[in-house]
Amino acid sequence: MKIIHYASVAPNHFDNDQAKGVSGRVVIGRNDDANHFCMRVFEVAQGGHTPRHSHAWEHEIFIHAGEGEVYGQGKWHRLQAGSVIFVPADEEHQIRNTGSEILIFACLIPSGVPEL
Amino acid sequence: MKIIHYASVAPNHFDNDQAKGVSGRVVIGRNDDANHFCMRVFEVAQGGHTPRHSHAWEHEIFIHAGEGEVYGQGKWHRLQAGSVIFVPADEEHQIRNTGSEILIFACLIPSGVPEL
Repeated sequence: MKIIHYASVAPNHFDNDQAKGVSGRVVIGRNDDANHFCMRVFEVAQGGHTPRHSHAWEHEIFIHAGEGEVYGQGKWHRLQAGSVIFVPADEEHQIRNTGSEILIFACLIPSGVPEL
Repeated sequence: MKIIHYASVAPNHFDNDQAKGVSGRVVIGRNDDANHFCMRVFEVAQGGHTPRHSHAWEHEIFIHAGEGEVYGQGKWHRLQAGSVIFVPADEEHQIRNTGSEILIFACLIPSGVPEL
């Protein structure tokens, strides 16, 4: 059994043409012999956003804290703590922080694809 | 894309010899064509607990709110919002609420096993 606080993992920071103010951490993955799926935790700073993209694997997302929006199927949808998002494979998506606090969410992916 | 608040799903309640004060919801699963893994969200009332058991599949758990403890490898470990737990297959585990608020966590399992 592995028990950590997500914040104990060193983050990878993403600030580029596509992502702004994003920190990502792999909290459960192949290094834990988790062989079916992988948990990452992301923090998005005020005004920040993840890239708008699609890929051949799904996301299962749980919003932990903050306020934001997810883009999908041509429009933005509001998110709050406790929101759950399923993004099927190959569907375009993006998340942005529209609140005044850090937006924090767990985002899970199947094994065998890039963990972060 | 599916976007819901977890609380919009009707809960299953568990109050028996093994579990006390537990409500569980499947928020992403086979009905969504999520074919690799399944997200459930559990609420454990003050003083409540999940069953102490083991099974042939793993858990990936994110603690959303409240305070509690997880039993594993012979002792109890403290949990708080933001805690992450990986329970490998076949390892005995149990979660209990030791705080004064509802303990809320997302618990993910691989596809092909009982969703709840």
